[in-house]
Amino acid sequence: MWGDGGVASKRGKLKNVSAPIVAVIGGGQLARMMQESATALGIHLRVLVESDQAATAQVVPDAPVGAATDEVAITRLVQGANVLTFEHEHVPGDFLRQLARKLPVEPHPDALVYAQNKLKMRQKMAQIGVPNPRWAQVEGAADLEKFAEQVGWSLVLKTPTGGYDGKGVLLAHSFAECQPWLQRISEDGGVLLAEEAVPFTSEIAVLLARRPSGEIAVWPVAQTIQENGVCAVVHAPAPNLDTELAAKAQEIGKKIAKELRVTGVMAVEMFVTDTGVVVNELAMRPHNSGHWTIEGSVTSQFEQHLRAVLDLPLGDTRAVSPACTMVNLLGSEYEEPRVQYAKALAVPAAKIHYYGKSVRPGRKLGHVTVVGEDFAKTEANARKVVNILKGNAK
Amino acid sequence: MWGDGGVASKRGKLKNVSAPIVAVIGGGQLARMMQESATALGIHLRVLVESDQAATAQVVPDAPVGAATDEVAITRLVQGANVLTFEHEHVPGDFLRQLARKLPVEPHPDALVYAQNKLKMRQKMAQIGVPNPRWAQVEGAADLEKFAEQVGWSLVLKTPTGGYDGKGVLLAHSFAECQPWLQRISEDGGVLLAEEAVPFTSEIAVLLARRPSGEIAVWPVAQTIQENGVCAVVHAPAPNLDTELAAKAQEIGKKIAKELRVTGVMAVEMFVTDTGVVVNELAMRPHNSGHWTIEGSVTSQFEQHLRAVLDLPLGDTRAVSPACTMVNLLGSEYEEPRVQYAKALAVPAAKIHYYGKSVRPGRKLGHVTVVGEDFAKTEANARKVVNILKGNAK
Repeated sequence: MWGDGGVASKRGKLKNVSAPIVAVIGGGQLARMMQESATALGIHLRVLVESDQAATAQVVPDAPVGAATDEVAITRLVQGANVLTFEHEHVPGDFLRQLARKLPVEPHPDALVYAQNKLKMRQKMAQIGVPNPRWAQVEGAADLEKFAEQVGWSLVLKTPTGGYDGKGVLLAHSFAECQPWLQRISEDGGVLLAEEAVPFTSEIAVLLARRPSGEIAVWPVAQTIQENGVCAVVHAPAPNLDTELAAKAQEIGKKIAKELRVTGVMAVEMFVTDTGVVVNELAMRPHNSGHWTIEGSVTSQFEQHLRAVLDLPLGDTRAVSPACTMVNLLGSEYEEPRVQYAKALAVPAAKIHYYGKSVRPGRKLGHVTVVGEDFAKTEANARKVVNILKGNAK
Repeated sequence: MWGDGGVASKRGKLKNVSAPIVAVIGGGQLARMMQESATALGIHLRVLVESDQAATAQVVPDAPVGAATDEVAITRLVQGANVLTFEHEHVPGDFLRQLARKLPVEPHPDALVYAQNKLKMRQKMAQIGVPNPRWAQVEGAADLEKFAEQVGWSLVLKTPTGGYDGKGVLLAHSFAECQPWLQRISEDGGVLLAEEAVPFTSEIAVLLARRPSGEIAVWPVAQTIQENGVCAVVHAPAPNLDTELAAKAQEIGKKIAKELRVTGVMAVEMFVTDTGVVVNELAMRPHNSGHWTIEGSVTSQFEQHLRAVLDLPLGDTRAVSPACTMVNLLGSEYEEPRVQYAKALAVPAAKIHYYGKSVRPGRKLGHVTVVGEDFAKTEANARKVVNILKGNAK
């Protein structure tokens, strides 16, 4: 089924392994966590890592070093692989289109483009009838002024490509604040995406997976809480979310997956407003808003992504408990979370995930998940552990 | 806390990782599953593997090849490690005693000897007042005849060291059947352990972990079902087990852990009889009877073993659901379970674990766990998946 299973590795050919080979571009925490599921399922991961210090390089034996834009390295990476997939969107679409004639590339570059380019995403959402915030393509000052007249200030400016974790996004309160961004596109010939600042009551994420053959499995909707533009806390299933609205959000997610022919895991971040939901962002890969599924669901997003990109039957997406909270461990001024490790482990039922990364302020270094019966307790415990790890605990 | 964290690996020194380093002897499925937990916790595993095809070698970058008796390889393995531990008992006690002066060896060879030598184990259980079956040390025919007069036929003969999975164990129905075993010890000067064939109503396993500093955490008692001398099915928490008896079994486990100064995970296999429980076997490492804890408990035995040998606080051992069943995938005449993989994954909620091993009849190739509300369903689903993988499904 998976070919002869000869697996090239640093230590030569592993002859006895007839495991499916999943090639992955990107060696951060997402590929690292994929490896935990790959190990359980007997799937061989081969990961193109940014450096031999990368989070994934520490735990995957078959981890060649190369940039995500390095066509020679990617060509070598997919030799004998059953499928190519990604842990981030910063991959060259045209080259992937060529590769997709030789092996399955999941998600296909024709789908992935909507996660790579936020302007194309807005156009596509409008076309398939999925609720967007008001938005405009901005090629210069005139476009922006016109849009500001419609939506008023504040508004949100985004670079269509390359942003993540709040980078490439500006919440602008005046035209003056937008000047440097307008200056930049007038110099480099780019365009911007302008969006209304949606007056949301909460933010949610619809996480799902879709196989090439069409099967879709959607997890319970999660609530996401951003701090400084970065995902800080996730509750699942989203507390206090109207059941009908949750179902509607899931339907929107499924519609996007189907219409865009998404494969693998997709996260759709949405704003909840007084009148319904609108789509904020798309990611076509395991996503921070889905880390809760490792302990909180029967099937984790990492296992599901591997199943989906290999076109294998999808796993059960039920939540295993009424309440699950995930809190990110972001790098603080405090240099070495490791010294607080023993203290943090003493908090009952907290599951600590460390990504093996060096500490920088604001960097995602790990996360903590607590599964339980009520969110007050799961959040308190998860925050407590993160505070201990950050050196902030009393 | 963990030293400078310079980690030697196949690809040179990983400078940014200040992870604790756990050195492990043995590269089978147990060390492989330890790696999943090590990855999550940010622990660096360095594993001495039997070959570069070993189950663990496929998923651990830092996996030197060497025999468990190779003192040079072990000396190299522990360079810079925070602790040395094991995934099997077939390790040289005298050499480990020397090593234990240089770094923590968990469990300490003085404890491990009771898992290595069944005769010493029986003596020790008797000494600390833990219920044994009737037993005798057999140095020749006279000893055996005398013991058979006491307990009658059938009885069980065991080689004190080196056995596992039913190997080194003979259920003998007559003196004649024992002759080859008596012959062997008369030639090589060894001794045998004879035990009564306990008329048990069921078999259970008490799984626990103990830290060097004394903390003990015990999981709910599991029921084990052996087929052909090999663990086939595990139910947890043990269905239909009297609550008082379960508590008594846990107390016995804790007593053994404390008196023997066990560190890391220990499994105590026991027979349930009409009058109580008696100890069958001890293992001082993660054990097949504890695989259910990966999905079935808040803390898996693999995570707990790492925490325990590093003397870190132990995790929550509660069961996450009323019923959890694990069924082993043993190698069948059928050559390639992998071709049935997609079909097996279509069974809802079944968690498949593959060890990456080549197929041989009877060999442990993987296991399947189902968590649910009642054992009839969890067992039926787990067995169904294993039958599909074995090519036995209709």
